[in-house]
Amino acid sequence: MVYKGFKYIPLEGAYELIKSSVRRAKREEVLVLEAYNRVLAEDIISEVNIPEYDVSHYDGYAVRAEDVAQASIDNPTLLKVVGQSFLGEEFEGEIKAGEAVYISTGCRVPLGANAVIPVEQAKNGFIEVRRSVQPYENIISADSDVKKGEKVFNQGHVLRAQDIKFLLDIKKWKVKVFKKPVVAIISVGDELTDRIDETDKKKLDSHNIMISHSIKEAGGIPLPLAIATDDINDVKRLIIRGLEKADIVATIGGASVGGRDCCWEAANQIGIPTAVIRGIKVQPGRVTSLIILDKPIVLLPGHVQSTLVGFCLLLLPLIRHMAGFSSSFSFTTLNARLSHKLSLKEFASFKRVRFVKVTKVNSEYAAKPVLGDSSLTGIVVKANAFIVVPEGKKTIEEGEKVDVHLVNGLFPSLQTF
Amino acid sequence: MVYKGFKYIPLEGAYELIKSSVRRAKREEVLVLEAYNRVLAEDIISEVNIPEYDVSHYDGYAVRAEDVAQASIDNPTLLKVVGQSFLGEEFEGEIKAGEAVYISTGCRVPLGANAVIPVEQAKNGFIEVRRSVQPYENIISADSDVKKGEKVFNQGHVLRAQDIKFLLDIKKWKVKVFKKPVVAIISVGDELTDRIDETDKKKLDSHNIMISHSIKEAGGIPLPLAIATDDINDVKRLIIRGLEKADIVATIGGASVGGRDCCWEAANQIGIPTAVIRGIKVQPGRVTSLIILDKPIVLLPGHVQSTLVGFCLLLLPLIRHMAGFSSSFSFTTLNARLSHKLSLKEFASFKRVRFVKVTKVNSEYAAKPVLGDSSLTGIVVKANAFIVVPEGKKTIEEGEKVDVHLVNGLFPSLQTF
Repeated sequence: MVYKGFKYIPLEGAYELIKSSVRRAKREEVLVLEAYNRVLAEDIISEVNIPEYDVSHYDGYAVRAEDVAQASIDNPTLLKVVGQSFLGEEFEGEIKAGEAVYISTGCRVPLGANAVIPVEQAKNGFIEVRRSVQPYENIISADSDVKKGEKVFNQGHVLRAQDIKFLLDIKKWKVKVFKKPVVAIISVGDELTDRIDETDKKKLDSHNIMISHSIKEAGGIPLPLAIATDDINDVKRLIIRGLEKADIVATIGGASVGGRDCCWEAANQIGIPTAVIRGIKVQPGRVTSLIILDKPIVLLPGHVQSTLVGFCLLLLPLIRHMAGFSSSFSFTTLNARLSHKLSLKEFASFKRVRFVKVTKVNSEYAAKPVLGDSSLTGIVVKANAFIVVPEGKKTIEEGEKVDVHLVNGLFPSLQTF
Repeated sequence: MVYKGFKYIPLEGAYELIKSSVRRAKREEVLVLEAYNRVLAEDIISEVNIPEYDVSHYDGYAVRAEDVAQASIDNPTLLKVVGQSFLGEEFEGEIKAGEAVYISTGCRVPLGANAVIPVEQAKNGFIEVRRSVQPYENIISADSDVKKGEKVFNQGHVLRAQDIKFLLDIKKWKVKVFKKPVVAIISVGDELTDRIDETDKKKLDSHNIMISHSIKEAGGIPLPLAIATDDINDVKRLIIRGLEKADIVATIGGASVGGRDCCWEAANQIGIPTAVIRGIKVQPGRVTSLIILDKPIVLLPGHVQSTLVGFCLLLLPLIRHMAGFSSSFSFTTLNARLSHKLSLKEFASFKRVRFVKVTKVNSEYAAKPVLGDSSLTGIVVKANAFIVVPEGKKTIEEGEKVDVHLVNGLFPSLQTF
């Protein structure tokens, strides 16, 4: 017999449970050229030195610093040009006292030379040096970029544009990454349709589209399955199909204990869970639940603000944990000053999420609460970040500092001012 | 005759020049279902009210608040259930004194009712109400989410996941967006190859791959054209081809005034520019240049840190301006405390960019400078943000507050701790 009520647990407990009960996704090897934005499933050790040897930082002349120690504009030193170095065609000899070699950027510094003088013009086989240089000036020392055997990336690192370049530079052509978790999405409700030509009578299942984009940004692959009616057998049938086809199943709507809500019961009837979360201590979004059979099933509430809180605070960390991110349970956070007093009387023992509109005022961020019923989409459209108010706190004063959180896809980078 | 030296201009001047000389991209109409992350090229006005009428926030019973004003646990009020409302099948009558109607979430509140009591069980056609409700309790008022005629988005807004949902909810199926600017990329250098099997002798053109990803994240479409040799005619030929095929041409390397550097001369030989920038007052990256013929040509320097500074501070704002963003010239910025003193003696009259590694220390961000030669890729790989030191400032003390900047693709969201 399935327990009918809620047993709200704190987010911290939910994350511990996810860490201990949910396995990471499998690994796969991919070409570095196709690994942008993927999560490394291995540490990367460089097998080469970069540069391989001392190289010139500029186009110029390789010289012995001691030869030009007295050079100045009024008293130039004359050096004989004995050769030239281009990439692929380098000078192989040794520089002796009074000699110089033309060298282009990135070329090996010839034997005997210990400094480079940028952009001088040769004349009749000689250069006139008008300044002194320190030993090693304008030279990039061997292995100063990376040393053979050095660890350059840790497992869990997300590969950025410069990281892809770096992997190619150290001649790493393939890497092991975590597979992206596939998330089956089932929207629940007799009133829903996925057909635009039925929107006169029914509501378009736009939640599904919003959550699909968010799943993609979180590092998962969305797999919208179908709309379930408010019938437990239909919900069960679709969850079972989701468990076959995906790594995570997410339902939207029907997560509570109202007459038509049947997701909890449906998921529990499929098998004996190894772990469950029946409600989280966060409002809105408190009915968000998790049933772990062989795979996790997440029940998201249907009111849009609750859906998004459940997504951001439970489904997203779950996806990121599975996808191998080293930072599954944290957000990009800015510090801002609350522009209007916020009173939070209800659910005082819960964390409370409030959506805010952040703007830059002089050199500071100001966060204005955007308030309204949890079913209003306008609120999350007007907002560009959210705050999480700690348990017990009943008031945030005007001017008080708060942490505002960003989430890819929903509340992305704050360049919009 | 092309002017040979640099005429460094401040970034602010460069941005003014871009705003006044570079046209926005053309518009195109796309399906809302395909408009995620696109930049709106029109204001969006809602043509509908949401909700269309007063609707119930919960599954429950629609009642007259005055009928249950005296109801309590000890003294329940009995109401007669006279009908039921489901989406698509709504109760059409009027509620009279002592009556109630079952109502599911989102249904229109029947005539006569003015409040909803959530989840009560009916018994023999009656409900026992054990609490009072205020008028309008648990009802979402007509047009409280959006009013017909209300402006919901401004031109320049980037469509997020919830915005796509909202557009679908207001039955907007198509929107006008800015076309993404196509950016042709030409890497310049005899030493470069794009073939992995030639990397024993030559350097793989990995800059191009890094910049391609960055252009995509900036809202452009990268079009890697080819590698040019250090020959002015080859560079010219490829720039001309780029001008034919793309909206912006970007060269990487050969931007300075060294013996082999020919990009500036090549671009200027193609036509008479309507505007030019020959160097920006930012170091590294100062040789970054812009030549506007009928289309803009951006010259990026070749040393990786300079390339990235030129990208972030000139090419990226240019792409964003063309792509119609309302915020082309700003970054997502966090405030952090510098963890180590930074001395900046050179280029004191320039802005100086330094790469930093930001971590969270208690509730604050700490930024540690990651220093090294501008050709070292390891620096930008170890960093996760950058700072821009204002002109004139020669020292930042340990513990001083600095603004650290994030950029999609290169220095994205800081969730990595």
